[in-house]
Amino acid sequence: MVAPLLSERDLEFLLYELFDAEAMTQRARYCDHNRETFNAALQTARTVAEKFFLPIRQKVDSEQPTFDGKAVHMIPEIKTAVDAVIESGLASCTADYGLGGMQLPEVVANAVSAYLSAAGSTTLGYTSLTNANANLISAHGTAEQIEKWVVPMRDGRFAGTMAMTEPGAGSGLADLTTSAVKDENGHYRISGSKIFISGGDHELNDNIVHLVLARVKGAPQGVKGISLFIVPKFLVNDDGSLGEKNDVALAGLFHKMGGRGHTSTALSFGERDGAIGYLVGEENKGLSYMFHMMNEARILVGTMGAVTALTGYQYSLDYAKERPQGRLLAEKDPSSPPVSIIQHGDVRRMLLAQKAYAEGAYALCLLGAQLSDDEKTAETEAERKAAHTLLDFLTPIIKSWPSEYGPKANDLAIQVLGGHGYINEHPVEMFYRDNRLNPIHEGTTGIQSLDLLGRKVPMNQFAGYQACLSAMEETIAIAKQSEALAGFADDLSTSITTLKTTTETVLAATQSMTVDAAFCNSVSYLNLFGHVVVAWIWLKQGVVADAALSSSPHKSDEDFYKGKLQAMAFFFRHELPLTHHWATIISDLDTTHFDMQEAWF
Amino acid sequence: MVAPLLSERDLEFLLYELFDAEAMTQRARYCDHNRETFNAALQTARTVAEKFFLPIRQKVDSEQPTFDGKAVHMIPEIKTAVDAVIESGLASCTADYGLGGMQLPEVVANAVSAYLSAAGSTTLGYTSLTNANANLISAHGTAEQIEKWVVPMRDGRFAGTMAMTEPGAGSGLADLTTSAVKDENGHYRISGSKIFISGGDHELNDNIVHLVLARVKGAPQGVKGISLFIVPKFLVNDDGSLGEKNDVALAGLFHKMGGRGHTSTALSFGERDGAIGYLVGEENKGLSYMFHMMNEARILVGTMGAVTALTGYQYSLDYAKERPQGRLLAEKDPSSPPVSIIQHGDVRRMLLAQKAYAEGAYALCLLGAQLSDDEKTAETEAERKAAHTLLDFLTPIIKSWPSEYGPKANDLAIQVLGGHGYINEHPVEMFYRDNRLNPIHEGTTGIQSLDLLGRKVPMNQFAGYQACLSAMEETIAIAKQSEALAGFADDLSTSITTLKTTTETVLAATQSMTVDAAFCNSVSYLNLFGHVVVAWIWLKQGVVADAALSSSPHKSDEDFYKGKLQAMAFFFRHELPLTHHWATIISDLDTTHFDMQEAWF
Repeated sequence: MVAPLLSERDLEFLLYELFDAEAMTQRARYCDHNRETFNAALQTARTVAEKFFLPIRQKVDSEQPTFDGKAVHMIPEIKTAVDAVIESGLASCTADYGLGGMQLPEVVANAVSAYLSAAGSTTLGYTSLTNANANLISAHGTAEQIEKWVVPMRDGRFAGTMAMTEPGAGSGLADLTTSAVKDENGHYRISGSKIFISGGDHELNDNIVHLVLARVKGAPQGVKGISLFIVPKFLVNDDGSLGEKNDVALAGLFHKMGGRGHTSTALSFGERDGAIGYLVGEENKGLSYMFHMMNEARILVGTMGAVTALTGYQYSLDYAKERPQGRLLAEKDPSSPPVSIIQHGDVRRMLLAQKAYAEGAYALCLLGAQLSDDEKTAETEAERKAAHTLLDFLTPIIKSWPSEYGPKANDLAIQVLGGHGYINEHPVEMFYRDNRLNPIHEGTTGIQSLDLLGRKVPMNQFAGYQACLSAMEETIAIAKQSEALAGFADDLSTSITTLKTTTETVLAATQSMTVDAAFCNSVSYLNLFGHVVVAWIWLKQGVVADAALSSSPHKSDEDFYKGKLQAMAFFFRHELPLTHHWATIISDLDTTHFDMQEAWF
Repeated sequence: MVAPLLSERDLEFLLYELFDAEAMTQRARYCDHNRETFNAALQTARTVAEKFFLPIRQKVDSEQPTFDGKAVHMIPEIKTAVDAVIESGLASCTADYGLGGMQLPEVVANAVSAYLSAAGSTTLGYTSLTNANANLISAHGTAEQIEKWVVPMRDGRFAGTMAMTEPGAGSGLADLTTSAVKDENGHYRISGSKIFISGGDHELNDNIVHLVLARVKGAPQGVKGISLFIVPKFLVNDDGSLGEKNDVALAGLFHKMGGRGHTSTALSFGERDGAIGYLVGEENKGLSYMFHMMNEARILVGTMGAVTALTGYQYSLDYAKERPQGRLLAEKDPSSPPVSIIQHGDVRRMLLAQKAYAEGAYALCLLGAQLSDDEKTAETEAERKAAHTLLDFLTPIIKSWPSEYGPKANDLAIQVLGGHGYINEHPVEMFYRDNRLNPIHEGTTGIQSLDLLGRKVPMNQFAGYQACLSAMEETIAIAKQSEALAGFADDLSTSITTLKTTTETVLAATQSMTVDAAFCNSVSYLNLFGHVVVAWIWLKQGVVADAALSSSPHKSDEDFYKGKLQAMAFFFRHELPLTHHWATIISDLDTTHFDMQEAWF
């Protein structure tokens, strides 16, 4: 049995029918591209994924990297796979041609990396984090810094990390204590401990470029006193050759539930006389630069959640078609042959729910990628600004919805396989474990929910919030024209009305109770908003599928579009009504858990 | 940080305040017992758990048993722990004194084994499966079989397994192909392959007694042609000494997501001339005997789900009290000290949800254990029959609700710890992995849902269904007397009304559509009924806590009872309203997923 990593037909639908990626080729930056070059990149990714990633996916999971006190050891196949990504140009496929990139739009690049992620998100982690690091320095570093650090990261000689978390301050960046002291050369000496640094040490590349958040001596307290530094593993001479080892030491490896090939490290900066660091931009503005990377990383996290859900769905679907077991309830003759388990009602539910979660989540991530293109390359300033506003608003949802519902999809994939889903002969239990990190890193679901309700909704006189509502209303107006879709459009309208009332109620509540009490159901609010947004994304898909069906497609396309409509219907009937449950909790200003005293637990 | 395995105060509440375990001592079988002997057994279990299980809990997980083609190797600490359970008498604490047991009531024995389960459910698996095997042979075997197999299992020399699943037939027992041929001695020769046999081979005991389902040559097709056999690893001579090795071979070990210390094996029976097996009871009645064991095992599975949730809750609660991070939203001064994370609204939600799931689930399991006592030892035949009827009805809910909501609780425990929850320095990710088996084995959640809706509800003119409704009405009537509880009692009443209407609708639907279509939302029905039952269990706890509060308890007890009422309120406000969501799906006779064609996926 070889299940496809991803459905090619679905990717085609999303890229070219739902999001019209071809239109990108009208823009100056992408004018050398066309649908064929996009597809060629997708095919390259699929080939690398199937040739280098897929065969080692489970070995990477079962043979974790080790640390002998001196160096990190990992199975050599990881380096072969990482090198294949670099050599194929996939590691920096959005970067400028001048930097060795493919200059692909984000929306296409997202689908390209989806193949690699589906075949081994753990192994992909090394190059995708490097890419994010290089993007940040490109945006905020000096020309000299770009030359020294970005160029070798783009060509694969150096790797990159982001080093934020500290033992005493996880999500609470305001309390980070890593210090930076300016030395006589105008550089800084960095001292402190960082934990959970992905790819923090390994031998895959010649050098590792850490982006480190630290506090310059005398800086203000809290988040306003945080600066960002480039702190390399090895210093680099002016001619680009490697110099001596910097004062950065690997203190240990963490052993994770999943994502096991991607080393998670504890790093110790400045055990001797301080690690040499180079300031990025200005002092005390580090967090805003890091958020450049973090917003991008949040979309990537959502994407990993969605893609791992997609590949688990494909795997369990394939299994359910091929595995005979049991009979339909109506069949009373024990001598009749067993049916394939996809015939059983509850197995179909678990498959269709996975499709609804995974394809809804991934379409949402591609929307994010397209908005990211638009904010950079849309034709007018007004369009770019509008895209930025909507993307900024949607980011907590794009980060958290796929990372919450991706693992739920993988959980159903395990259940479809039954006992076989619980053992490592099949990858679905690993998908769950890999995916479980996504609701945690780059801001937990709880943090995303407060970002949405406390910041993004009221921000700029509700500009992002209104933009989101308007975008949904537009789709509703189109869907109402179709007999097949009008009922779903009405259901979404009703949920949006509920959402608006709920939003008003919870924001008004901060006048009559503490903000902590009023916002204690912020995750229910995120659930509510997330489900409304994903229902909208499904209605958008429904509009495309419905129109395509009316143009007498080939049988296989007809089946595909009917499947899309059925998944949409499932989401509207089995999931969207939950919005009213969450809305009630929020609108009631329920504080049952907030009122729970520590001594009562 | 040493989090308690379980809350002693909560166990005391459940055993003595909610279920009145002391009343058991009025029954002849338990007349030598009193509260002190019960507590002594609990203390013994706690001591063994803390001394032998807890220190190796993570080692058992990280160092899986291996198979070198000849024998299974496991870390020696497992044998030490298993021996400690046997030597302390805890392995067969419900068994007769005459067989070396403690003759404890089930309700107390359940709490006793909860300590061991919390400290290492994997290691406990060996003795609990042996105990279930011995119980089955005691109930259905001959006096000679009991002497030969049960006695050495009770005293710990032999271990026991149940061997049902085959590679081609997982949940579909009707299709099992393992064969049995009667030989000249009146024994049978067994041939076939079994998979996922827990504890199928190891060196912990002198011998292993497999209970094997097989089909006698010429038996009817389907489940009516299945017989049950005792098939030992080593034959046993008439003097009780071990004879030659039987024709049972270990074909391999499975590597599981969790529960890693408990070997899961593929066994090959009869590779040479057939493994010698001894028929239990009569031919072709094997499945009914196995269901004796399976009903017991289903309650045990629910219990494992609940206990693993309880211990994860205790662990994350302890962590949340001790871990400082961030500030309340209302606090704008960055120089104020960070608060412990239990102060954050969303962390409190995740803790209170765990309490509501875990304590609700465990109270439900103890109700099952008490009904199991009552069906055997209640004073009158009518009481015994009533207990049997209710327990039989509730079994699919007792099996599945804790095994579905236990992992959800563990998932929240991971989230409370954030990044620290994802690494193996803390056990919460292991709890999740261990617990994830429970919705699968001993009948998946899907199978339990069909057992409930298709069999248990209509069975015996709705006798069990009506008994369950009556029991709930009784609690509602009591709760209505209290001002603090009346509103909750009304909410439960409303949900029960919805449940009744939904039940009528879905059963009537089988007249107008195929049974497979009508029952395609059986899991929603199980969710609906499960939530109503757990709300009832919470209301029962609320009644006790409310009464206790009015009698001016000590401060620590007052806090405890207030916590119970708050968890009850949380369940009623955040969970019970979901029953209306599920009821709508079922009552609409929604067939969206059932109508999904294979080609559309």
